Amino acid sequence: MQAPFLIFLGDTALRGTDKTGAGLVEWRPADCLAQYRLPGCAVDLGRPDMSPAEARAAGARTMVVGVVNVGGIFPDHWVQSVIAALEAGLDVAAGLHQRLIDIPAIAEAAARTGRDVHDIRQPTRAFAPGNGEPRSGKRLLTVGVDCVVGKKYTALAIARDMRARGLDADFRATGQTGLMIAGRGVVIDAVIADFISGAAEWLSPAADPDHWDIIEGQGALGHPSYAGVTLGLIHGSQPDALVLCHEPVRTHLLGLNQAIPPLDRCIAANEAAARLTNPAARVVAIALNTGAMSAAEADAARDRIAAETGLPCADPIRHGAAALVDAALRAPVPVRA
Amino acid sequence: MQAPFLIFLGDTALRGTDKTGAGLVEWRPADCLAQYRLPGCAVDLGRPDMSPAEARAAGARTMVVGVVNVGGIFPDHWVQSVIAALEAGLDVAAGLHQRLIDIPAIAEAAARTGRDVHDIRQPTRAFAPGNGEPRSGKRLLTVGVDCVVGKKYTALAIARDMRARGLDADFRATGQTGLMIAGRGVVIDAVIADFISGAAEWLSPAADPDHWDIIEGQGALGHPSYAGVTLGLIHGSQPDALVLCHEPVRTHLLGLNQAIPPLDRCIAANEAAARLTNPAARVVAIALNTGAMSAAEADAARDRIAAETGLPCADPIRHGAAALVDAALRAPVPVRA
Repeated sequence: MQAPFLIFLGDTALRGTDKTGAGLVEWRPADCLAQYRLPGCAVDLGRPDMSPAEARAAGARTMVVGVVNVGGIFPDHWVQSVIAALEAGLDVAAGLHQRLIDIPAIAEAAARTGRDVHDIRQPTRAFAPGNGEPRSGKRLLTVGVDCVVGKKYTALAIARDMRARGLDADFRATGQTGLMIAGRGVVIDAVIADFISGAAEWLSPAADPDHWDIIEGQGALGHPSYAGVTLGLIHGSQPDALVLCHEPVRTHLLGLNQAIPPLDRCIAANEAAARLTNPAARVVAIALNTGAMSAAEADAARDRIAAETGLPCADPIRHGAAALVDAALRAPVPVRA
Repeated sequence: MQAPFLIFLGDTALRGTDKTGAGLVEWRPADCLAQYRLPGCAVDLGRPDMSPAEARAAGARTMVVGVVNVGGIFPDHWVQSVIAALEAGLDVAAGLHQRLIDIPAIAEAAARTGRDVHDIRQPTRAFAPGNGEPRSGKRLLTVGVDCVVGKKYTALAIARDMRARGLDADFRATGQTGLMIAGRGVVIDAVIADFISGAAEWLSPAADPDHWDIIEGQGALGHPSYAGVTLGLIHGSQPDALVLCHEPVRTHLLGLNQAIPPLDRCIAANEAAARLTNPAARVVAIALNTGAMSAAEADAARDRIAAETGLPCADPIRHGAAALVDAALRAPVPVRA
């Protein structure tokens, strides 16, 4: 997936569906040249608007589909935009369940233009079932009270902070956006169900005892749509440290008429799950997503939640990730074989 | 998948890998004409040994691969047996992760002979993510302290007992063997991870308020290889009643050096998981697999575990499923929309 990128946003009407595009702009800003929006598009990543031909002329190499929709289906009327990009000389990358290359008109255009279509959600390899065996190295996994609550940003910010301290740390991507940012990983919710924990074991293999893998979490144990993915990822990751991600203004689970459970119950549930494969696993900190709050509100939420839970608490974007990293480094790390 | 069947057992050396063959012999005995074993095979289903040609002459229509192996890989030296079956005029059915039709020599033989290859593990349709919405009808799900502990047999025995009482009950298959027995269902561990609970919702749709779906469980919440599948199946099934399956002589998780947790912890973990989508969910009974015990030992285990847990307890094969069904019918069933 060659940079620079043109980020395709379609005519998405719903804010929050552009997390792939927004993640790339945040974490690979220098590579995000422009955005391509259709009439009616309700999101704006703050990049210049360009057509595929304009972006190609300005140096773009790949058009990245920057929006996802529930179920991962690609609307018919976006197909023409993909074909236009291929015809303009751009490769196209997407992270949907549905492979773009399976759409006949796109496959035909790719063959005709000689451009590449990267369907990065599809696993490119087979996995074995998880075996639960302890392995060396240290692991931190972000988990959430809900989906889309900041698990990827938190993991990226923690990995960046650790590396800035000179620690040996890798971000391990488990979603399509994380994979586009990191350039490697496994889209864990696209794996065959039998191999969720096995794929997670593959993703963070045995490493040097001082090495940290900072693993991007997926879904939430308390979300009835995706909790199976979350549990398999927890078991396979064998985290020493868990960081629980929370958005204080959110009251209900994403897309559902169901209240988010209290933080203490989320902490207990995630620790109980993780201790099946790592008895020392512990929630060491709370990461907040305070994007919808003022600075004063965010600080107040941080202080209130730290007092409530007795754990360090910070918005890794607003407050920095130092408090979260400090907490992870204080966590007891078991001796591993 | 047309009956009668020739059950292929290969040269499997490990007892316990023949659960597909054994399940068909137990639950569709009249359809299991013969078994086909290669030299060195350590299992015996008690059916006449026949070659594919002999079985075809005796009236068999389909050779069913009756053994599974960890990871679902089909050994190269079994490929010739499949080709021999196709050449003898039999269709072939298998429930492995690896599709037989993807093996070039088998695909060639199927095309040449005009026979069908049924890879029944592969989902034949797409699913939506689960939505967790309550739906009408009653549901019972079997869960286990471990894998391969009797969840399918228990569900089949409960469904049979309910129907014998004149109740409106369906067995809902979630594994390859269950699907071969029932002729329909979804192999839930072969679904894309994002859609586990959605596939489970599809499997037991809204039904008449008095209808019972008896759903075959998969894996175990306490097994680090497969717990993600188990959790998604629990959430999507929204069971009113759970029956926890246990094998009293077993001490460690299948394939792992890890002790099986105490029954009270298994009960609590399964109820906590199920209550996310059905707050009234309750473990109503314990089903035992006493196949490795004498009659006296089995009865003693039943009485001991009933006293320990305060729940009705029975081996549905040895003692009959009546006590388990009675417990389910006593369970409070919430009013559903």
